[in-house]
Amino acid sequence: MQLLRLGDPGSEAPAVRAGDGTLHDLRPLTADITGAFLAADGLARTAAALAAGELPVLADPGDGSGLRVGAPIAQPGKIVCIGLNYRDHAEETGAELPAEPVMFMKAPDTLVGPYDEVLVPRRSVKTDWEVELGVIIGRTARYLEDHESALACVAGYAVSHDVSEREFQLERGGTWDKGKSCETFNPLGPYLVPASEVGDVQSLSLKLSVNGVARQDGSTKNMIFSVAECIRYLSQFLVLRPGDLINTGTPAGVALGQAEPKPYLRAGDVVELEIEGLGRQRQTFGQA
Amino acid sequence: MQLLRLGDPGSEAPAVRAGDGTLHDLRPLTADITGAFLAADGLARTAAALAAGELPVLADPGDGSGLRVGAPIAQPGKIVCIGLNYRDHAEETGAELPAEPVMFMKAPDTLVGPYDEVLVPRRSVKTDWEVELGVIIGRTARYLEDHESALACVAGYAVSHDVSEREFQLERGGTWDKGKSCETFNPLGPYLVPASEVGDVQSLSLKLSVNGVARQDGSTKNMIFSVAECIRYLSQFLVLRPGDLINTGTPAGVALGQAEPKPYLRAGDVVELEIEGLGRQRQTFGQA
Repeated sequence: MQLLRLGDPGSEAPAVRAGDGTLHDLRPLTADITGAFLAADGLARTAAALAAGELPVLADPGDGSGLRVGAPIAQPGKIVCIGLNYRDHAEETGAELPAEPVMFMKAPDTLVGPYDEVLVPRRSVKTDWEVELGVIIGRTARYLEDHESALACVAGYAVSHDVSEREFQLERGGTWDKGKSCETFNPLGPYLVPASEVGDVQSLSLKLSVNGVARQDGSTKNMIFSVAECIRYLSQFLVLRPGDLINTGTPAGVALGQAEPKPYLRAGDVVELEIEGLGRQRQTFGQA
Repeated sequence: MQLLRLGDPGSEAPAVRAGDGTLHDLRPLTADITGAFLAADGLARTAAALAAGELPVLADPGDGSGLRVGAPIAQPGKIVCIGLNYRDHAEETGAELPAEPVMFMKAPDTLVGPYDEVLVPRRSVKTDWEVELGVIIGRTARYLEDHESALACVAGYAVSHDVSEREFQLERGGTWDKGKSCETFNPLGPYLVPASEVGDVQSLSLKLSVNGVARQDGSTKNMIFSVAECIRYLSQFLVLRPGDLINTGTPAGVALGQAEPKPYLRAGDVVELEIEGLGRQRQTFGQA
């Protein structure tokens, strides 16, 4: 079962793809895929409504034709990110391995669809890519005590692209957030897969290519801090709420980690990324 | 004219206090004080409706009695903060003076009312105070070119309390955000004053006391980067949207800057803060 949102930016309608590949209208159940919907057992109700034949079949938008595919959730209350969470990525950036999870934030309005244009910011010369496992929260998480209760707060997973501007992030003073929150910097989707259908979340391959050249090829096996530990840890510092998004870090292979001249992104570049079982994104970069 | 929101958390109703001190119901104009309301000339329409006698008079809730006073805006899309923006505060923390504005973010759901309880996080031993001028955005700001266009994006101002946990912020790895986004860490209000009624925003006194002891006594004169410059600068890195909140930094006098033993906050402490023309907050701290 895959949940998705179809339509123009700001007016996406919720839909669900059943296990047999048919696409169904989710509007009989909810106007949008929001935190409130997820918190009110929305995924279980979706599965039940599908099984009962209560959701009308939709014509399939196909790939790149028909309706635009939006991010699979409405704008989250917050986007919390874990930095340097893969050993090989920490090493390529020259950073020390973190003793505890590194946290930073992205502005929630950076969320866009998986095939939307991503804008290279004005005066940017170091726009970089980062394929990440995105975690969508389904229950409020506050001072969680163990990994079991942490995983119980997950609604589902999606491919997340934590687009980053390295000069803004690392050379302009202050915290990383300056290079993480530029307009369109968080493509998400194409769909949300319920946690119960993902299998072992610590054994998913992640891949990213730029203009057809393979750049990242990792596995969530190599996270320093597991998804469960990231959630448990974050809940000691802030409240995670239904509909919030957590980006859990990226494996090696970003432009920052390459030999000079580093292949930072420019308008016209095409980035494709995928995570095992969670689908594939494709963005053509434009200029802000 | 002061805009405010009255009622229980999550169900506040909008109100406005006229220049003559009378309190009026704002519900004939809007269900809430949101970015959409501000963007649709909400402040000018409020003034016109007041002048035309179209807003019913409300019984005054008074100070500490009657209806709870909430934050004067609905939960913002984002809270963007400027760090080390007063020379004396940068010096007391031992930080170098920033060459350009330092930016970090607070989770939007940290927003609470001006008299609400603020929670010392579990395992916190360094919870600290920071009185700040809060800027509420009224028009979308994207790649602004000058200070005039930056100030044109401001709807109004309010007292903002950027509560901070210094160990989480500075000693736990990663960026500052970990110590800035704890539950209840952003009291705002008691009211929003339209920018047109604030006079010279770079000449407002800010004061904060803890348990009756004066701790901060500064002026927005001493900002390193003016409100206009902060907005112009931020708009190069992210899009500021109507309803967003910017915290513009704090003057000297925080606990972090005091001699040992530093007087960090504990449950039972009472913090009072005020900014000239923008009113006064009072919080009793509790334990999460």
